[in-house]
Amino acid sequence: MSDFHYESSRTGLFLVDPYNDFLSDGGKLWPMVKDVADEVSLLDHLRSIVLAARGASIKVFFVPHRRWEVGDYEDWDHPNPSQRWVQERQVFAKGTWGGEWHPDFMPQADDIVVKEHWAQSGFANTDLDFQLKQHGVTHVVAVGMLANSCIESTMELGYHVTLVRDATAAFSQEHMHAAHDLNGPTFAHAILTTRELLAALPPTVG
Amino acid sequence: MSDFHYESSRTGLFLVDPYNDFLSDGGKLWPMVKDVADEVSLLDHLRSIVLAARGASIKVFFVPHRRWEVGDYEDWDHPNPSQRWVQERQVFAKGTWGGEWHPDFMPQADDIVVKEHWAQSGFANTDLDFQLKQHGVTHVVAVGMLANSCIESTMELGYHVTLVRDATAAFSQEHMHAAHDLNGPTFAHAILTTRELLAALPPTVG
Amino acid sequence: MSDFHYESSRTGLFLVDPYNDFLSDGGKLWPMVKDVADEVSLLDHLRSIVLAARGASIKVFFVPHRRWEVGDYEDWDHPNPSQRWVQERQVFAKGTWGGEWHPDFMPQADDIVVKEHWAQSGFANTDLDFQLKQHGVTHVVAVGMLANSCIESTMELGYHVTLVRDATAAFSQEHMHAAHDLNGPTFAHAILTTRELLAALPPTVG
Amino acid sequence: MSDFHYESSRTGLFLVDPYNDFLSDGGKLWPMVKDVADEVSLLDHLRSIVLAARGASIKVFFVPHRRWEVGDYEDWDHPNPSQRWVQERQVFAKGTWGGEWHPDFMPQADDIVVKEHWAQSGFANTDLDFQLKQHGVTHVVAVGMLANSCIESTMELGYHVTLVRDATAAFSQEHMHAAHDLNGPTFAHAILTTRELLAALPPTVG
Repeated sequence: MSDFHYESSRTGLFLVDPYNDFLSDGGKLWPMVKDVADEVSLLDHLRSIVLAARGASIKVFFVPHRRWEVGDYEDWDHPNPSQRWVQERQVFAKGTWGGEWHPDFMPQADDIVVKEHWAQSGFANTDLDFQLKQHGVTHVVAVGMLANSCIESTMELGYHVTLVRDATAAFSQEHMHAAHDLNGPTFAHAILTTRELLAALPPTVG
Repeated sequence: MSDFHYESSRTGLFLVDPYNDFLSDGGKLWPMVKDVADEVSLLDHLRSIVLAARGASIKVFFVPHRRWEVGDYEDWDHPNPSQRWVQERQVFAKGTWGGEWHPDFMPQADDIVVKEHWAQSGFANTDLDFQLKQHGVTHVVAVGMLANSCIESTMELGYHVTLVRDATAAFSQEHMHAAHDLNGPTFAHAILTTRELLAALPPTVG
Repeated sequence: MSDFHYESSRTGLFLVDPYNDFLSDGGKLWPMVKDVADEVSLLDHLRSIVLAARGASIKVFFVPHRRWEVGDYEDWDHPNPSQRWVQERQVFAKGTWGGEWHPDFMPQADDIVVKEHWAQSGFANTDLDFQLKQHGVTHVVAVGMLANSCIESTMELGYHVTLVRDATAAFSQEHMHAAHDLNGPTFAHAILTTRELLAALPPTVG
Repeated sequence: MSDFHYESSRTGLFLVDPYNDFLSDGGKLWPMVKDVADEVSLLDHLRSIVLAARGASIKVFFVPHRRWEVGDYEDWDHPNPSQRWVQERQVFAKGTWGGEWHPDFMPQADDIVVKEHWAQSGFANTDLDFQLKQHGVTHVVAVGMLANSCIESTMELGYHVTLVRDATAAFSQEHMHAAHDLNGPTFAHAILTTRELLAALPPTVG
């Protein structure tokens, strides 16, 4: 990958589920991902990548899971296990701190906040694909949560996909391994470290 | 799962990529999946399940990967690693034995042969979702190849999904573990053995 | 159509864009649709249909256009003419009366409010298809605004579609004619009057 | 539109349903569209546009309706009126002359033949969107059959859309009027004559 460089005008950064419940001390899911997140220096890497992307005029897309609301899933024919799990714990509950963005990852004026997704793919049932087209994006770099679910499924629609090994986390290192060494290589066009990604992004403008 | 039963009129069986290249001695991919396939008795289980499904009047959907043709991927902006791999090896090549159905898994008159898919999901860029609706299917049972790719991505569209541990294979047992124990549990509504599935299908009619 | 009856459990009512800007005196678009709306008794018919649907336990889906917000469309590569038109007039502006539901058509506890759509189809870039599946709906009855745009495009996904001639409106009778006599007959499974629809719905329960 | 020019690398030409059944003397649908087709000089215009597009290195996409086969639609829950109509007449029947391309519109080596569509949109249930992305196309020019159906629905996915008034036909001039003067203006970014389009295409290379 040493000779690959991302073009600002064609590249989009997906920031997946940067909610307090996932990324902040006190969040409902934080205890389950903290070990892996700390080990890869997740928060530092996310901050560096977002800063570099903004500096290079790369569009940032917030790709958020559905914020739980009263009634969600209750009359569904067949919510899946993740959805039942979210329902029981009221994860990312709307109007609560857990469903707010982590304070270091707040949308800025030029960012795109995509519609919330119900399952694991940020594309399914949202305007993500449409927004990428309206902004000329063909290459996506996906960071955030979780390595083995939300991010893995963003590949079927014809985009160039980059995963970043140490800018995501999971419930265990075994999940990380499955995402980056077993499944990722079948669909991702690049699987980089944060350091490698930063080297391949255009320099900060101005 | 002991008390769950599939309703014939709402259930569809996905038979994913039952090509000679995948399932037959002499196929281009068979050497890479043979160990796992033999270990789980893949072919016997596929035969039992297809027989039971037909007997119970459950609709069978053939979900095939793109058969390679001359020119495929050549002028694409960014084929992914699996696509480049298929391109180099001319896997499932149209008009060759490897791109034909395994002789035990030939479409019958009432089966649906879905359009070929380019990536890993049988839904993306095909008429699978549309055909399921026109046939009233809300619950899908996915068997065939590969555990960790084609099958994993068939979940985002609102269907009830069943995986069958020993009616699929992969390049290694580690891939099987990732599919059925790490990722499957997040999206699949049921993960069964062939024996458990057969017990939950309606009995053969007439 | 005299012998066709809708089954409550399989039917969904789409209420398309019931905003004040479209349906209320003082709304930004009301002057442009008022003549046709009055001529077909639009509001009375919408009220009757919604009442009958709720009475018959038919699920009601609110299918709303994007509410305009500051910044919308500004950095898009190519908004279409309707989108530019909406942008200039700030139609359905978020946080304003025009972007609120008409008081006679407020979502009730059991209704589904689908994600807002950017273009003309309520399906594109939203969770409408997904919600229909989770609620077992295969037959949709579409009412609301506008006859010739939002409603015409809801057909490609495999649903049974009913249009209601006098429960929609348009900028002119010529647009109504195009929707119901030229284009509708190519894709809609039924094109009824409100009276015919009411006769084909299940009776009010309890 | 006089100052708009199409860029070869971003533009795709959709040639919709150029079957003998639609465009050739003796075709099953030709008698129904002949009057309008002759009046607008359809075939001459299609030939000019395809020639100019190829000369300018604009990618040509064949966007074909499903070729009828034995069994089609028979066990569907609810084929729509167009589909029943096609079924009765066996329109574009596979293996027959009517389902072959008109001899002046045969795919060339570099063209893309998209998967066949079941309904009216060339995007629904096909790989058209995916192919456009893999070829970097953001602007589409749609010509062929029919003005009021197949072409009207190709707009929801975020592309820049051009219609060509006299490079399509319909069952009547009233249908043409609806397509180009009532509905087209709401979603199409440009509605041109063949002459205007040819002036806006890049010159033939070499």
